[in-house]
Amino acid sequence: MKKVEDYIRSIPDYPKKGINFRDITTVLGDPEGLKLAVDEMNALLEGVEFDVVAGPEARGFLFGMPIAYMNGKGFVPIRKKGKLPYFTIEQEYDLEYGSASIEIHKDAIKPGEKVVIIDDLMATGGTAEAMVKLIEKLGGIPVKMICLIELMGLKGKDRLGNCEFDSVVKYPDA
Amino acid sequence: MKKVEDYIRSIPDYPKKGINFRDITTVLGDPEGLKLAVDEMNALLEGVEFDVVAGPEARGFLFGMPIAYMNGKGFVPIRKKGKLPYFTIEQEYDLEYGSASIEIHKDAIKPGEKVVIIDDLMATGGTAEAMVKLIEKLGGIPVKMICLIELMGLKGKDRLGNCEFDSVVKYPDA
Repeated sequence: MKKVEDYIRSIPDYPKKGINFRDITTVLGDPEGLKLAVDEMNALLEGVEFDVVAGPEARGFLFGMPIAYMNGKGFVPIRKKGKLPYFTIEQEYDLEYGSASIEIHKDAIKPGEKVVIIDDLMATGGTAEAMVKLIEKLGGIPVKMICLIELMGLKGKDRLGNCEFDSVVKYPDA
Repeated sequence: MKKVEDYIRSIPDYPKKGINFRDITTVLGDPEGLKLAVDEMNALLEGVEFDVVAGPEARGFLFGMPIAYMNGKGFVPIRKKGKLPYFTIEQEYDLEYGSASIEIHKDAIKPGEKVVIIDDLMATGGTAEAMVKLIEKLGGIPVKMICLIELMGLKGKDRLGNCEFDSVVKYPDA
């Protein structure tokens, strides 16, 4: 039986020399690949008590929504600055050169709500850490983050504080 | 019983004066709202034969993925220029001022495949028309597009050629 990693396409030297890009569009494009990816991410939520699912633009939307739907929860989009129409709070994070900001609606999470964070990839953890901070600023409790892919060498999960982390496909390299 | 439109938040004068922005984050954030929106979009696919689901970055991802999952199909992301890692084709479309491009992976759709397009909102139909063109360039057949919301006054659906269209919530105004 095929595993999720069998559907991932690796693209050498993208977006620049030395990076082996993990392309998930070949997972999504295959009915079995898509089902397997969503089901295995969802299985990592077994035993986790939570109230709502959050995920970042754009690829976090891909897996966050089916997982919210399957668990009978709502979904909170976290977006790049200037994309959300209502009152927001923002959090800056570092990029390789410079910085960027993500935002969440001020009323998206109520104090005390337990939040699961969903994304496609855990790399350096910059956005992940910013998401944890945004949720905590609103009084929410980030209980677990789940990614389809983890680049273990970059140690991104160490930046999540008390929020648990797990992934379906773990690459030892960056 | 509440309907999808009861969960939509209208934000006057956003992003500019005179526009009544339809905010779907209040639909997504509510477990019943999210389920109702996905289920009602999915119900519009009854009797439609199709092979794959496609949707545009970022909000098309939100509904495209659960609908692909529920129907046992794959999902093809259509993205802004420069975001897809493999070989792509692109299609320009007009904005209010200037133009922009969207892309699809060259191998995302096989000739003869029937494609359902999913997005959150049908407005002027600029992106929608560009998506139809991209799918047709690859030899695919766009059989139906479904949006959660339709701004009927803008007549966007008239730009889809032979591709059918339907929506869950129809606003008569723009």
